[in-house]
Formats: sequence, structure tokens, C-alpha cells
Amino acid sequence: MKKSNSFSGRVLITGVGGFSGKYLSSYLHKEYPEAEVWGIDISEQSLSLSSINFIRSDITDYDNIKRAIARIQPDTIFHLAGTFDCGNLMSLYQVNAIGTEHLLRATTCLSKKIRIVLASSAAVYGTVLPKENPVKEEKKVSPVSHYGLSKLAMEMIGTMYGQRENNLEIIIARTFNLIGYGLSPLLLPGKLAKEIQELSKSQERKPLKVGNTNTIRDFIDVRDAVKALALLAIHAKENNAYNIGSGVGNKIKDLIKLFIDKVDPDIEVLTDRNLFKKSDPDIVTADISKIKNHTGWKPEIKLDKSVLDIIKLINRQV
Amino acid sequence: MKKSNSFSGRVLITGVGGFSGKYLSSYLHKEYPEAEVWGIDISEQSLSLSSINFIRSDITDYDNIKRAIARIQPDTIFHLAGTFDCGNLMSLYQVNAIGTEHLLRATTCLSKKIRIVLASSAAVYGTVLPKENPVKEEKKVSPVSHYGLSKLAMEMIGTMYGQRENNLEIIIARTFNLIGYGLSPLLLPGKLAKEIQELSKSQERKPLKVGNTNTIRDFIDVRDAVKALALLAIHAKENNAYNIGSGVGNKIKDLIKLFIDKVDPDIEVLTDRNLFKKSDPDIVTADISKIKNHTGWKPEIKLDKSVLDIIKLINRQV
Repeated sequence: MKKSNSFSGRVLITGVGGFSGKYLSSYLHKEYPEAEVWGIDISEQSLSLSSINFIRSDITDYDNIKRAIARIQPDTIFHLAGTFDCGNLMSLYQVNAIGTEHLLRATTCLSKKIRIVLASSAAVYGTVLPKENPVKEEKKVSPVSHYGLSKLAMEMIGTMYGQRENNLEIIIARTFNLIGYGLSPLLLPGKLAKEIQELSKSQERKPLKVGNTNTIRDFIDVRDAVKALALLAIHAKENNAYNIGSGVGNKIKDLIKLFIDKVDPDIEVLTDRNLFKKSDPDIVTADISKIKNHTGWKPEIKLDKSVLDIIKLINRQV
Repeated sequence: MKKSNSFSGRVLITGVGGFSGKYLSSYLHKEYPEAEVWGIDISEQSLSLSSINFIRSDITDYDNIKRAIARIQPDTIFHLAGTFDCGNLMSLYQVNAIGTEHLLRATTCLSKKIRIVLASSAAVYGTVLPKENPVKEEKKVSPVSHYGLSKLAMEMIGTMYGQRENNLEIIIARTFNLIGYGLSPLLLPGKLAKEIQELSKSQERKPLKVGNTNTIRDFIDVRDAVKALALLAIHAKENNAYNIGSGVGNKIKDLIKLFIDKVDPDIEVLTDRNLFKKSDPDIVTADISKIKNHTGWKPEIKLDKSVLDIIKLINRQV
């Protein structure tokens, strides 16, 4: 465990232009002004680059990523570059698994200690029985999606390197359901925010079509999540996995109600059984005692505040 | 568990032109003449096609594999198509993981029960502590190579389909170190057979360079292994993994001695520390009580006979 409460040297964020990457770079800029933050991403699109040193770099191209690592000489890496588009299986494995291999192989050329936080997902747990909740890090991993599989491959590649290379300190962060402004509409809260806004503006009074809304999930605000990543980089034990979640279960129907109440209470909700997913467990919540004990982190933003802030930010954009 | 002791309907072997595929097709032809055996492979090279119905098919091309499955209408599938070339990471995941996804997705279009044996590997276990031997199927999987990772991805894809699709009965076969005539020189016994033959014929008296020969491995003759695959297809419990090994540990140095004694006892053995591998466990042997109990299979060919038969067949070729 690091004694200090800060970052020494250079901090690299991969996938800095992504959802979590943007929040993390802002957070580090604000909370750790002494840190020299670098970011890489496959493109510069939609990046506000004022606060970070940016290098355009492709994680799937080993020579390219090796050059970037050699130039940046990072002391801490937040590896957030990844994809969750299950429509392109090759890309899932190429980016999430082989991209991680490229990154870690490139770091072995640096002759100094490097702390590396790998952004994984609760998807590695796969099927969760009701009695297994809240899920502990020791639960047997058993993904039921290619996304979960590719993230598990990422974790195992990290474990291989952590065991083999004395100078790499690998920390695995398993994030539960992220929520926040800017989340992809491929993920539930992002989809709800988008659809409910659209329905509210529509002339026709169409209902919101939903799947099984009795399932219970653990939503964690992205602002709490990036704070957890920073504290893991500083305080976590190497070769360990940590859950990042709120520790609280919320029914999907309650999340929907929060959005509708804040946007347009007249929107009707219609259950469509075609939207039910066979492999969806009834309940998945995080046991967060490990990250609390090892880093002092705790979630601070309640779900209704997350929803309220998303709506506010959407309205400001319009 | 099937009551019968045979195969009903059509049997498909993927990767039929590979090492195990050739032995399995010959074995089924001889021992189960009532079975209608089909084979697919990416090429027809080096196939003797007299005993099987062959369709050229590429497991990495979903439309292609779907057409083949629709035409063959298999009742039993031995999925042996795979690659172990760690020099091409993309190909490892594309063939072993995504290829399996393609095959299983294609089978969901058939409206009948299908038994599917997936050829996995002891590599999914990863690091094995001395006290964990002989390795049981329940041991926590934790690959330390991309090959092991890609095979674990294959297993998990099989598990996903097995849980989701009522008509698919998935059986996982984890084979330990195969030995037999025709084995790739990328794998140890194939490499030894090749190198020792070459040294024996060479004019110069060069020594055989070897790595750590005190490691203990479980070698299983490919003829015993394909018999195990056949019995698993008939008798195994679905959604179960089975070790296929001899249950016996042999030091690498003893395997080398067997080869040298039979080819040319004058060959000198030289230990080269550069050939030692960091992540090689000292001992890995299979617990084979599960496959014995569930199928009645037991290994019958001793290691010295495997070696003798390889030498005989090589000499016949010369």
C-alpha cells in the first residue's frame, strides 16, 4: 500500500475520451493538481484537452501503443480503453483482451514500478443467485456474455503480467452499473434518459416500452466511481480485485420512476415481454466492504441525485 | 446420460484434418461403423476422405459454418477445430472463442437435441500448486497463457449456450499433454521426436538442447484420448467438464530418455537454462476419476508404447 495520499510522477488514462475517462481526467485535474495527467485515445473527438497532455494512440496496434508508453513514461495507469459493443465480437476481444496485452507488454520496457488499475466490470461474475448477494470479490467468476468474457480475459492477462513482472502492480476494478450524464444509450440509464426526454418532447403521447423492471441492480454514479479508481490507484493492494458499486439495490422500475417524475410524470410505462432477457439475474448488488476497508472510499451520491443531475445537464444542452 | 452405447444419426467432427480429428475419424469409422461421420475443416489438405463425408468450412465465417451445419444436420458434434499458435493472438481468440460461438449459434437453428463435445485443454487450470495434484475438474480455472484464456472463453461460451438452449447438451473435455504420431513440433513430444530423429541422422554429433527436464507432466496417447471423446459423447453428463489424461506423472527427462533409447542412445542431452520457462509449474497431473466413473473409460496405452509407436511410424515414412 502506498503511504502517500497523492500521485507521484505521471498518470496515464487510456480511453480518456470515453465516458469514465472524461470524468476521471476532470477529477484528477481538480483533486490532484500536482499530478501530470496524460491521456490516450483512438481519436481526439469530443475531448476538451486543456487539462491533460494528449497522445492519439490505438491500443490494438502494439507498435503504436509501445511508442506512446515510451514517450509518456507513466508511473500510474488507469486502463479505461475498452468496448462493450457485443455486435462486434472480434472487436470485443481485440480491444478488451489483446489491447490490454499490448498495453502491459509495452510497460515491461520501462524500468520502474508502475501501478496499473484495470477497468473491469461486474459482468465477469455472470449468473448471480439471489443468495449470493451482495456479491463479494471472491465469488466464482463465470461470465454469461462475450463482454463479460472479454473483461475476464483482460483481468487474467493483468494477473499473468502482475505475477511475472516484478515492477507491475496490477489492481482490478469491477464496476457495477454506472450512471451519469453522457452515458451511452446502449446502457440502461443512458437509454432511459434519452428515451424519456424524447417521449416528453414528442407530440404523440406514446408510452415508454420496458422489459422486466422488477430486476434489482446496483447503480453507481460515475463521479463516485472515478474517485474510487483514484483511491484504488493510491491505496489498493496489488493483485487484488475490488468491487465499485453503491452497495444498494434498486429496482429498475424505481429508476424509471425517478426519471419520469423529474422529466414528465404523464409518461406511461408499458411492459413488453419481448424485451425480457433470459439470462438476466433477478438481483445483483455489490459487496463494497473491501474497497471501503482498503482505501477509505465510500459512495456519496444517491441515485435520485444522479438522475436529477443528468436531467439538469441534458436540459442545459438543449 | 444416454442409455445406448453407440451413436444415432449423424456425427460431425470440426477440425477433422487436425491431429486429434484424424485419429477420431479413424476410430469412429472402425469402432462405430453404424455412425454417419461428417467432417469439416478449413482445408482438405492431408485428409484421407474415404471414411467420412467432408465439407470444407471455415469456423471463423458464421454464414459459412451455418450453411454447413444446416446441410449436415448433426446429432453429435466433436468440436476439435482450434489453434494453439500463441504467435497470433487475434487468431487464437477468433478461432477458439468466436469460432465456437459461430458453431453453437449455427446449431440453435436445428430443432433437435444435439450432443456437443468441446475439446478444451488442461491449460485452463493455469498455475497448479504441487499440493493441487492430481488436478480435479473443480479446481479454480486461472489460465496463464493466451491459449488457456482462449480455451476458457470457449468453455464459457459453451456453458452460456448449454444454459440457454434446451436442445444443446454441452460436454467439456480438458485434455492434458497429448502424445502420438503426427503431433505438431510446437508441442513437446512432437518436438522431441523431430529433433531426436534429426540429430540421429546428422553427421555431426550435436547434443539435444533441453529446458527444465525435472518438470512432471501427464502424457496421454491420442488413441486413448479420442476413445475418451467418443465415450464422453455417449455417456457424459451435460454441462460438465472432464479431464482426459493418463493420471500418471512423468518427468520430461524420462520422456526424453524413452525417445533417445529407442532412436539413438548415443545422443547427449544438454540443459540450456535459456529454455527454462518462468511460468511452468513443477508438476501437473490429471485426476481422471470423474471420466472413469461416468463413462467407464480408462487409458490403456503406456508412455513407452506411445514413444515406440511414434518412432516406428516415423521410420516407416522414411
